[in-house]
Amino acid sequence: MSTKPTRNEAKEIALESYIIQTEPFYLSQKDEVELFEAAYMEKIPVLLKGPTGCGKTRFVEYMAYRLGERLTTLKPKTKAERDGNGHKGIPLLTVACHEDMTGGDLVGRYLIEEQGTRWIDGPLTRAVRFGGICYLDEVVEARKDTTVLIHPLTDHRRILAIEKRGTIMEAHDGFLLVISYNPGYQTALKDLKQSTRQRFMALEFGFPPKELECKIVAHESGVGEEVAWQLAKLGEKVRHLKDHGLQEGVSTRLLIYTGKLISRGIAPRRACQVAVVDALTDDHEAQQSVQEVVNSIFA
Amino acid sequence: MSTKPTRNEAKEIALESYIIQTEPFYLSQKDEVELFEAAYMEKIPVLLKGPTGCGKTRFVEYMAYRLGERLTTLKPKTKAERDGNGHKGIPLLTVACHEDMTGGDLVGRYLIEEQGTRWIDGPLTRAVRFGGICYLDEVVEARKDTTVLIHPLTDHRRILAIEKRGTIMEAHDGFLLVISYNPGYQTALKDLKQSTRQRFMALEFGFPPKELECKIVAHESGVGEEVAWQLAKLGEKVRHLKDHGLQEGVSTRLLIYTGKLISRGIAPRRACQVAVVDALTDDHEAQQSVQEVVNSIFA
Amino acid sequence: MSTKPTRNEAKEIALESYIIQTEPFYLSQKDEVELFEAAYMEKIPVLLKGPTGCGKTRFVEYMAYRLGERLTTLKPKTKAERDGNGHKGIPLLTVACHEDMTGGDLVGRYLIEEQGTRWIDGPLTRAVRFGGICYLDEVVEARKDTTVLIHPLTDHRRILAIEKRGTIMEAHDGFLLVISYNPGYQTALKDLKQSTRQRFMALEFGFPPKELECKIVAHESGVGEEVAWQLAKLGEKVRHLKDHGLQEGVSTRLLIYTGKLISRGIAPRRACQVAVVDALTDDHEAQQSVQEVVNSIFA
Amino acid sequence: MSTKPTRNEAKEIALESYIIQTEPFYLSQKDEVELFEAAYMEKIPVLLKGPTGCGKTRFVEYMAYRLGERLTTLKPKTKAERDGNGHKGIPLLTVACHEDMTGGDLVGRYLIEEQGTRWIDGPLTRAVRFGGICYLDEVVEARKDTTVLIHPLTDHRRILAIEKRGTIMEAHDGFLLVISYNPGYQTALKDLKQSTRQRFMALEFGFPPKELECKIVAHESGVGEEVAWQLAKLGEKVRHLKDHGLQEGVSTRLLIYTGKLISRGIAPRRACQVAVVDALTDDHEAQQSVQEVVNSIFA
Amino acid sequence: MSTKPTRNEAKEIALESYIIQTEPFYLSQKDEVELFEAAYMEKIPVLLKGPTGCGKTRFVEYMAYRLGERLTTLKPKTKAERDGNGHKGIPLLTVACHEDMTGGDLVGRYLIEEQGTRWIDGPLTRAVRFGGICYLDEVVEARKDTTVLIHPLTDHRRILAIEKRGTIMEAHDGFLLVISYNPGYQTALKDLKQSTRQRFMALEFGFPPKELECKIVAHESGVGEEVAWQLAKLGEKVRHLKDHGLQEGVSTRLLIYTGKLISRGIAPRRACQVAVVDALTDDHEAQQSVQEVVNSIFA
Amino acid sequence: MSTKPTRNEAKEIALESYIIQTEPFYLSQKDEVELFEAAYMEKIPVLLKGPTGCGKTRFVEYMAYRLGERLTTLKPKTKAERDGNGHKGIPLLTVACHEDMTGGDLVGRYLIEEQGTRWIDGPLTRAVRFGGICYLDEVVEARKDTTVLIHPLTDHRRILAIEKRGTIMEAHDGFLLVISYNPGYQTALKDLKQSTRQRFMALEFGFPPKELECKIVAHESGVGEEVAWQLAKLGEKVRHLKDHGLQEGVSTRLLIYTGKLISRGIAPRRACQVAVVDALTDDHEAQQSVQEVVNSIFA
Repeated sequence: MSTKPTRNEAKEIALESYIIQTEPFYLSQKDEVELFEAAYMEKIPVLLKGPTGCGKTRFVEYMAYRLGERLTTLKPKTKAERDGNGHKGIPLLTVACHEDMTGGDLVGRYLIEEQGTRWIDGPLTRAVRFGGICYLDEVVEARKDTTVLIHPLTDHRRILAIEKRGTIMEAHDGFLLVISYNPGYQTALKDLKQSTRQRFMALEFGFPPKELECKIVAHESGVGEEVAWQLAKLGEKVRHLKDHGLQEGVSTRLLIYTGKLISRGIAPRRACQVAVVDALTDDHEAQQSVQEVVNSIFA
Repeated sequence: MSTKPTRNEAKEIALESYIIQTEPFYLSQKDEVELFEAAYMEKIPVLLKGPTGCGKTRFVEYMAYRLGERLTTLKPKTKAERDGNGHKGIPLLTVACHEDMTGGDLVGRYLIEEQGTRWIDGPLTRAVRFGGICYLDEVVEARKDTTVLIHPLTDHRRILAIEKRGTIMEAHDGFLLVISYNPGYQTALKDLKQSTRQRFMALEFGFPPKELECKIVAHESGVGEEVAWQLAKLGEKVRHLKDHGLQEGVSTRLLIYTGKLISRGIAPRRACQVAVVDALTDDHEAQQSVQEVVNSIFA
Repeated sequence: MSTKPTRNEAKEIALESYIIQTEPFYLSQKDEVELFEAAYMEKIPVLLKGPTGCGKTRFVEYMAYRLGERLTTLKPKTKAERDGNGHKGIPLLTVACHEDMTGGDLVGRYLIEEQGTRWIDGPLTRAVRFGGICYLDEVVEARKDTTVLIHPLTDHRRILAIEKRGTIMEAHDGFLLVISYNPGYQTALKDLKQSTRQRFMALEFGFPPKELECKIVAHESGVGEEVAWQLAKLGEKVRHLKDHGLQEGVSTRLLIYTGKLISRGIAPRRACQVAVVDALTDDHEAQQSVQEVVNSIFA
Repeated sequence: MSTKPTRNEAKEIALESYIIQTEPFYLSQKDEVELFEAAYMEKIPVLLKGPTGCGKTRFVEYMAYRLGERLTTLKPKTKAERDGNGHKGIPLLTVACHEDMTGGDLVGRYLIEEQGTRWIDGPLTRAVRFGGICYLDEVVEARKDTTVLIHPLTDHRRILAIEKRGTIMEAHDGFLLVISYNPGYQTALKDLKQSTRQRFMALEFGFPPKELECKIVAHESGVGEEVAWQLAKLGEKVRHLKDHGLQEGVSTRLLIYTGKLISRGIAPRRACQVAVVDALTDDHEAQQSVQEVVNSIFA
Repeated sequence: MSTKPTRNEAKEIALESYIIQTEPFYLSQKDEVELFEAAYMEKIPVLLKGPTGCGKTRFVEYMAYRLGERLTTLKPKTKAERDGNGHKGIPLLTVACHEDMTGGDLVGRYLIEEQGTRWIDGPLTRAVRFGGICYLDEVVEARKDTTVLIHPLTDHRRILAIEKRGTIMEAHDGFLLVISYNPGYQTALKDLKQSTRQRFMALEFGFPPKELECKIVAHESGVGEEVAWQLAKLGEKVRHLKDHGLQEGVSTRLLIYTGKLISRGIAPRRACQVAVVDALTDDHEAQQSVQEVVNSIFA
Repeated sequence: MSTKPTRNEAKEIALESYIIQTEPFYLSQKDEVELFEAAYMEKIPVLLKGPTGCGKTRFVEYMAYRLGERLTTLKPKTKAERDGNGHKGIPLLTVACHEDMTGGDLVGRYLIEEQGTRWIDGPLTRAVRFGGICYLDEVVEARKDTTVLIHPLTDHRRILAIEKRGTIMEAHDGFLLVISYNPGYQTALKDLKQSTRQRFMALEFGFPPKELECKIVAHESGVGEEVAWQLAKLGEKVRHLKDHGLQEGVSTRLLIYTGKLISRGIAPRRACQVAVVDALTDDHEAQQSVQEVVNSIFA
C-alpha cells in the first residue's frame, strides 16, 4: 500500500466536496450570526435548539460558507486554492443521527480491499483532521457510544480517540462541533445528559416571523408576493393551532412545497390540502381545523 | 478489477429490469395523477396514505410508466434505447420495509468475491444514481437508521451519503422518493416522526368506488360483468362492517381472487368463503357477519 | 469457478430430493383438494388454518404429489425425467418457521469455500427458480423481514428480490407460496398483519371425523379395526374436553403413537397414559379428566 | 482437502466416544424400560418429565447401553466392532440446553482452517447420520430455532434440514430423539408449544422410593447400609418439606455427596449441613427446618 | 502447523503462571479447610456463599496452594518440576463472571493468525485438561450458556463438550469446579437454578471475627496492633449498621486500605472517611451514621 | 511480522503521547492532592465522585503531571528520557465510558492487516503494561464485562486477564486505576455493585468556592477580575437554584464559555443567556429563574 501517490489527493478532493460553493439563501433572525462567529473563534461547541424545518441546517450551511469567506487563516488550504481556484466555505460535514448510529459511523472504519484493509475516515474524523464544522443533527437519537467521542472533543483537550487504530488526534484549529436537537421531542429516555449538555453554548431557533417567511417562500417556490404572503399567514395561523391536536406547527418547507404546486397550476386550496393539511396529520379533526384556516385565507 | 468492461453493462441491464415495459392497468380516482406529476417535476417527495390493497403500489407503477412516456428528458438513457429499442417507463425500485431492514439494505453493501470485494448498489442508491422512483412501502416498519438516508435526500440538498464508501452522491434529476404507510396501523412506537413527515406532500387513498372496482375485478379475474358487480357490491358492504369486529375492510385483491376461483368453476358462495370470509378473519362472529353479506348477494 | 460442469447437475439432484416419490396416504375431508388445485392454477397463494397435528403438512405433501401427476406442463423437468425416469410430484420445500428465522434463511446465503464464496439458494429461492410449492409452516413465528420477501411474491408482481446478489427473480409458472398457522395460538404480538393476510385465500382445517380418523389410525399404526375405533372415539372425546384445562385437543399423531405401542404389546390403558394423557399436559387435574375418558373406553 | 484418508476414521472414533462402554448403575422404578424399548423400536420420540437430579440422564445412559446390547441390527457398526472389539451401547449424544443455544449448535458449523473451511457435525446431526439417541436435556431452555430442526425429525418425515449446506438428511433407522424437562419450572414464557409437545410420548419420573434410594446411595458413596438408610430417610423427609419454603426436594445426588463426605470422616451432621442444608437453600428459616430433620435422624 | 515444537512448552509455561508460588496469608475461621480437602478428594464441586470482600477468593488461593503441597499425586507435573524445581500449588484459574460472558469465554476460541487459525483454551478447558481448580466468581452473573458446560462437569460424567472443535474432554483427576455467589444479591432473574445448584456442596462464609480481622489488618496494612484493633472494631460496628441504610457491611479490604493510608501519615479520621465512609455509600444520612461510628472509635 | 524493528519504537512514542507535557492549571480545594499521592504510593484504586464539570478530569491530569515529576522511580522510562529529554508526567489514559463500551475496548483487539493480524493494546492494557493512570470516566455507563477486568486489577492480585491472547499480565508498579461517577445520576439499573465499589477509596468533589472559581474563570477566559467575580457569583447563585427545576448546577466550564464570549464583545447578559441559561435547560420557567439571577448580577 506504499506506492499510491494519488490517494492523498483523492482524500483532499473528497474534502472539497464538503465545501459549499455558492452562498446559501439565509435571512438572519437575530444576532445568531455574530454569536456563532464568536463561538467559532473561541472554539466553543454550539447546540442549536428548535422545531422541525425552522432552518437550523440551512443556518449551519450559511455559517460554513460565511466563515470560510472571512476566516481565511483558519480555513484549510485545498488543492484547488493552491492552484488559484478559490473555494469560499469551510468544510461542513452533516450527519443525521439515528438510533442505530454508533461511534464507528462517525470515526471511520476499515474497508477490506484487494490489497488488504484500508482505513476510511468517518465524517467526524474528517472534520477533526482537516478543520471544518461537524454538524450532528438530532444528536440525541444517536447511540450512547458517541459520548466517548464528543466529550474529549468538547473540553479543553479537543482530542479524538480513534480506538480502532489505537491513536489520538488533536483537532485542527478550524474544527468546531455543532449539534442540534428539538426540545419538543425529548423524553426521559432520549435526553442530552447534563455531562454532555454543559459542553455547549446554546442558540434557540423558532420559525421566522411572517415578513421574513414571506420572503423565503417567494424566493424558494417562485410564487408571487401575494400568494407568498397568504402562505406565510397560513404558517403563522397553523402554528397557533399547535395545542389543538397538532403535534407540531407547519414547517417553512411545507409552505414552500405548497407554493411550488401552485406555481405548477394546482389550485391553491388543493395544494394546501396535500402539502399542508394531509402532510401534517392523519387525525381527521385536526385536518378539519387546518383546512378551515386554509379556506379562510384562500377564500 | 480494472479490465472488466462488461460490468457497467451488467449494471445497466439490471437497471432496465426495473423499468415497467407494459402499461399497468390503473383507473384514476381523483386528481392523484396530476398531483404526482407536479410533485415529480418539482422534486417534492410524496407520501401515499391508505389501507391495505387499495392500489397504492399499482398507482406508483402506473406513474413510473406514464412519467417515462412523457418526460423523456428526465428519464435515464438505457443501453436498449441507445440501440433504438424504446423502453417506456422510468425505473421503479420498490422496497417492502420491515423491522429488521437497515439503512445498509437500502444503500448497498460490499460482496466478497474471488477477486476481492465488489460493491453492490442497494435499491435507493440505484434510483439516486441513475434517476427513477424509489418506493419505500410501509416505511414506518423500517429501522430508524433509514432516517439518515431519507433526510438529506428530501430537502434542498438531495444528497445520499454512502457511509461505507465515504462518499456523497447528488441525486439524479429524475430521482424521486415515494413512501407509503397505512394510518390505521400506526402506534406510538411506529409513527413517522414530524421531522421526517414534514418532508413529504401527502396523497390519501381509499378503496375505489363500486363502479370502478367492478371494472377492475372484471378485468383482472375474467368473470363476467354481473359477477363483477356482485363482488364490487360485496366489497362495499364488507367495508361497512369494519367496525363490527373486522380489523380492516376487504381489499380489491381478495375480490379478484374470488372472481378467479369462480372462473375456475368453484361455486360463488364457497369461493367467497375461502377468499373473503376465512381470508379476512379467524373470529367466528365476524366470519358469520361477512358470510351473511355473501349469502344476501349470492342468493 | 468456471470449469465445474458438475455443479448445475448437483443443484438439480438436490431439487429432486424435494419431489415426493410415493403417494402420501391422505383421506380428503371436504373439497380442499379441488380448491387447492384451482388456487395453484390461478396462482393464488394459500393459507392453511388449523390446530396442531390435524394433517396440514400431510395435505400439502399430498397436493404436491397429486399436482405433479396431473400438471405435467407446469412441473419442472428434472434430469431423471429427461433420462426417462418419471418422478411424480412437483417439488415441495417445507420450512418450519421460528422466531430466529430471518429472510436470509429463506432466500439463501454465500458460503465461503476454498475457491471463494459460493451462493446457496434458500428453500424459497429454489421453489421460485425451478417451480414448486414453498410451504412456510407456522409463518407468524418468523421474523418480520420475511415480509419483504412474501409481499412481492404474492401479488401481481410475483417477484423475489435477492438483495444480497442485487437481483430480482420472476417466479417460475409452477411456483406457489403456501403458509399455515394455528389461529388458537395467535396473540397481539404474533399475528398476521392484514397487509400480509389479504394476499392469501384461506383453507380451514379441523381434526378428521371419527370414521376417517379410525381409518387413518388403523393404517398408520397397524392396530386392528376395533382398537382403531376405540382410539378415534378417544380422540373425539378428548377434544370435547378442550375447555376443561386442556390447551389443545389430542392430535391424530398421538393416537397413532398409542396404536403403535399397543401393537408392541403395551397394555392399552398404559399406552394411552404415556402417549395421550401425560403427553398432552402436566396439569394433574387435566390428566385425571383425560384418564377417566381413557378408562371409560378401555374398560 | 482431497488426500486426507484419516479424516473419516477420525469421525468414527469421535462417534465411538459417545458409546457407553460399561453398564451404568440403574435400578428401574416401574415399566419405563419396556416403554422406552417399544418407543425406540417404533421410532416414537420420547419426553422425560421429572424433577432435578431424579435420574433422567442416568436412565437415558442405561437405555443407550442396554439397547445397543439387544438391538445389534439397529446399532451402527463401528470400526472397533468390524475389527472384532465389541462395543456395547448405541451412541448417546447429550446436550444440556440453554437460552443462548441456537439450532446451529445442534446441527453443526463450518470451521475455518488452513486449507479452507471444514464442516463439523453438531451432536444432533451426528445422531441422525450414524444412528443413536440425541438427548436434549431441559429442551425448553433452548432458543426457538431448534423447533425447525425438531419438527421434521419427529413426524413421519424423520428428516433433518441442514440449511447451511443446503441439504436434507434422512434419519438413520437407529436414531431417536429424547427430550426432558422439569414441569415444576415451566412458565408462560418457557413452555413446550403444543405443536412440539404432541410429537412425543411422555415418561414421568419421580425420586426413587426409599428402599431403592438406600441402595443407590450405598453403591455410589461407599457408606454402610445404616448410614445409607438414614440418608434415604433424610431424602424422603426433606421432600415432604417442599411446600415449606423449599423450591425443590433434595436430589439423590446431594445424598450421595453427603455419604461421600461421611466416608471421608466428616461428622454426619456437618456433612448434611454443607451438602444438603446449605446446598439446597439460602433462606435461613428453610435451612432451619431442614437442619431439624437432619438432627432428628442423626441424633 | 505441524513443525512447531515450542508450542506445547509455551502452553505449559502458561499453565505454570496459574500456580501460586508463595503461601497466601489465610487464617481459617472454622473447618472450611478440612471440608474443602474432602470435597477435592471426592471430586465434589464446591459453592462458596458469602458477602463482598469476606475472603472467598483468598480462601480458594490458599486451598490451591495447600492442596498442591499435600496432594503431589493429583497435581499435574509441570516442566519446572520435571527439571527439579518444585512448584507448590495446583493451578488456579479464576474467572470473574459478568453478564456478557458466554460459554466461549470459558471454553476457548480460535484465533486467526498468519498461518491459519489457532485454538486457544479458555480457563475452564485449561483446568479440565491439565488438572486444577477453576473458580467462577459470582457465577450467577454469567450468561446461561455456561450451564451447558457446568452440568456435565459436575455430575458422574465429568466431561467438557468443546462444541467448536466437536470433541468431548474427560476431566483430569485433579480438576475441581468451584463457584461463588453472594446470597444478598440474588433476584428472581439472577438466581442459581436448582438443577445447577444441586450439583454443589456449599460452604458459607462471613466476615472474620474481630480478633482474626485485627490480625489480618495489621499484617496487610502495616499499622500497629492498637490501630488494627480500632479498625477491626470499626468493621464490626459498621456491619451492625447494615440495616440502617447500608447496602452491605464494610469489607476487610476497605479496613486494610484505611490502615495503609494511616501508615502513610493520613489522619485516622480522614483515612476512615475516604476509605470507609465515602467508599461505602453516597447516601448522606448513611454516611453520617458511619462517620459517627468512626468518631466514637478514633476520638 | 518478524523484521519490523520500528514497531516497538512506535508503541513507545504512542505511550509518550499520553504523557502531559505542561503543568495543567489546577487549584486544589482541600487535601485531595495528598490523599491521591498516598493512594498512588499504596496502590489503592481511587473513585472520584462529583457533579458534571467540577474539575475531576482536570484533577487527574494534574496528578498525572505532578506524580511524574516527583516519583521518578515509579515512572516508566520513555525513549525521550533515555535520550536526555525529560518528560514530566506519568502516562494518563482517559476513557469516557458509555453503554456500548465492552471489555474489548479497554483491553485491546486484533487488527487485520496485510501481513496477518496485529494486536493493538487497549488503553487499560497500555497503562497496565507500561505503568500509568487509567482513568475510566463515568464508569457505571460501561457494560458489565468491564467487571471481569477491573476486579483482579483492584485487589491484591493486580493482574489483567487478556482473554483473547490467553495470557495474564501483572500490573506495572506505576499502574493505578481511577474511576469517576456522578452520584446524582445513579439509578437502580446503573449503579456500582458493592463488590466493585469496595475496591476503591473515594474522593468527593464539589464545585470550587467562589474565590477559587473567580481565579479559574479569569485565567481560562481572559476576562478581567470584576467580570470573573460576577461570573463566579452567578455560578454560586445558580447552584442554589438546583432544586427549583434545574437538574444540575452550572459547571465552571459554562462560566468560562461566558467569559470568552464577553471577551469577544458579546454583551454580558446575552453571553449569559446563550452560554448559561439556554445551555442549562429547555424548561421555560427554569430559564426565567436563571435569567433573573443573571439580570440581578449584570444589572
